[in-house]
Amino acid sequence: MVQDLYAPSLQHALDVAGIFVFAISGALLAVRKNFDVFGIAVLAEVTALGGGIFRDLMIGAVPPAAFTDLGYFLTPLVVTVLVFFLHPEVERLQLGVNIFDAAGLGLFCVTGAVKAYAYGLGLTASAVLGLATAVGGGVLRDVLANEVPSLLRWDRDLYAVPAVVGATLVVLFIDHGMLNGATATLAVVTVFILRLLAMRYHWRAPRAWNRRSEVAEREEG
Amino acid sequence: MVQDLYAPSLQHALDVAGIFVFAISGALLAVRKNFDVFGIAVLAEVTALGGGIFRDLMIGAVPPAAFTDLGYFLTPLVVTVLVFFLHPEVERLQLGVNIFDAAGLGLFCVTGAVKAYAYGLGLTASAVLGLATAVGGGVLRDVLANEVPSLLRWDRDLYAVPAVVGATLVVLFIDHGMLNGATATLAVVTVFILRLLAMRYHWRAPRAWNRRSEVAEREEG
Amino acid sequence: MVQDLYAPSLQHALDVAGIFVFAISGALLAVRKNFDVFGIAVLAEVTALGGGIFRDLMIGAVPPAAFTDLGYFLTPLVVTVLVFFLHPEVERLQLGVNIFDAAGLGLFCVTGAVKAYAYGLGLTASAVLGLATAVGGGVLRDVLANEVPSLLRWDRDLYAVPAVVGATLVVLFIDHGMLNGATATLAVVTVFILRLLAMRYHWRAPRAWNRRSEVAEREEG
Repeated sequence: MVQDLYAPSLQHALDVAGIFVFAISGALLAVRKNFDVFGIAVLAEVTALGGGIFRDLMIGAVPPAAFTDLGYFLTPLVVTVLVFFLHPEVERLQLGVNIFDAAGLGLFCVTGAVKAYAYGLGLTASAVLGLATAVGGGVLRDVLANEVPSLLRWDRDLYAVPAVVGATLVVLFIDHGMLNGATATLAVVTVFILRLLAMRYHWRAPRAWNRRSEVAEREEG
Repeated sequence: MVQDLYAPSLQHALDVAGIFVFAISGALLAVRKNFDVFGIAVLAEVTALGGGIFRDLMIGAVPPAAFTDLGYFLTPLVVTVLVFFLHPEVERLQLGVNIFDAAGLGLFCVTGAVKAYAYGLGLTASAVLGLATAVGGGVLRDVLANEVPSLLRWDRDLYAVPAVVGATLVVLFIDHGMLNGATATLAVVTVFILRLLAMRYHWRAPRAWNRRSEVAEREEG
Repeated sequence: MVQDLYAPSLQHALDVAGIFVFAISGALLAVRKNFDVFGIAVLAEVTALGGGIFRDLMIGAVPPAAFTDLGYFLTPLVVTVLVFFLHPEVERLQLGVNIFDAAGLGLFCVTGAVKAYAYGLGLTASAVLGLATAVGGGVLRDVLANEVPSLLRWDRDLYAVPAVVGATLVVLFIDHGMLNGATATLAVVTVFILRLLAMRYHWRAPRAWNRRSEVAEREEG
């Protein structure tokens, strides 16, 4: 059974930690958008749990874990209270938040891919759903806040690509019968380091941009 | 079986009435956004049925009731025709629309929570899904109309909080074995009155706002 | 078994062709929105597969076909590479793209309705889900790109109405026991021709518009 990478209590603690850091990014965006305390709670919940709910719907794991584990639901509410009172301090800790978010990204893409595979999906689909678990909540957060998803924008440091690498690593490990706690941790750490490097050196993905402007210039000229 | 709060025909009539009033808010927004008649119909359907479809997906009740009960589907089309021809009159009846909407809010959060519990979800998850049933359609309406969901905005009178109270009441009744037609009606009426009071006295939820502006001023000064 | 309209290999080839043309519209919008290459891929995937995933969730066909057929997933990635390098040329072929898109619209509304019926839904619900299969991906594309769905806008040539006609034709054929490869093709071609005519003659659906402006004028005057 591939799902038991870690002891269940450790797995659960890691999940809650990932939910915690993702909820912070949702709550902070809600504060910036001037939402009320209920809006902060909604955005914290959606950001933290949205990716996992999407994955669970796709693999037929209903009700999604977000609705059966009380800790998953309560964690974003704790974040809501913290951010409600302490948001200037949390904003000032942005670097720290980003570092924990990178860890959450790695954790969720690995556990998401493993869960999808455990529910019988193929290797490619499992990697895709690992990616969706990790980034889906952020996309829902931005859609609800009526913003262009930061995931899709060219002017943001690489976020999804590290998760793609991590999810691909995981399914390669599965395919070669090598998935265990150590290799899963290796995949998480790989995502974590790639994301930190992307932030440090402002790595970005290319746009299909230059040629269009050339054409536009040619047509204008 | 907790689902039989009312006689089935009464329950169905109430559901259709709730769908009717929710569809009005979707259709009116579509008119304001200058959508064509097809867009009016889509927004009416999504607003009226979106919350219930979301709940049914989460609890594994597929196909959702919205796709198995023809009355649920046809009601928003009737609303579309009405609003298409009579929207100035309907707009002028805004107060009346809001009052019926408050009744729909109460009804949907109660029946949504009861259905989720009947499908085996826990008390907290049932309350959350009751809330989602009542407000989910409105969120989808605003997302499709490319607006910030009015649910999340601080400058709107309390909408979700009455539904939170109602859904909480319902699961408390369930937990104490006290849920029946009378107590369910009590929960609906509680939501209804709270929402009317929120509109009358412009109750709003607090924002995490003042401290940020203080910080901004301090940093600017 | 109503699902076998065409030989499986032909059906699959048609599906992939439909996914291909829908992915183009997603990828081109991503280029116009200045998204990076990852954003182009996401929008291509969502546009091409979103409608089918929605339908499969509603009818309980999980995991959705988009996650079990590798060709469905890889096709939008091929489109991403093409559009990334050749988008000025693809833009210039807009008329050709629109013609293929019209064919995809017809194909998806027919196969979507047939699949929904095969999963036990009623005739009306099957028609609705056929429509949702055909237009759902485009709505998700516009929501992710933070634009008002072009489906809902009055200033676009009819897009959904041809699909409504086609889906209605299909369920009428089913209801009269007349659905086969020939009648299904007739429905696809009907959608195709109606959509081409709508583009050629700029057919639009009416808005609930004039009366409001009359009222506004009366109130202003």
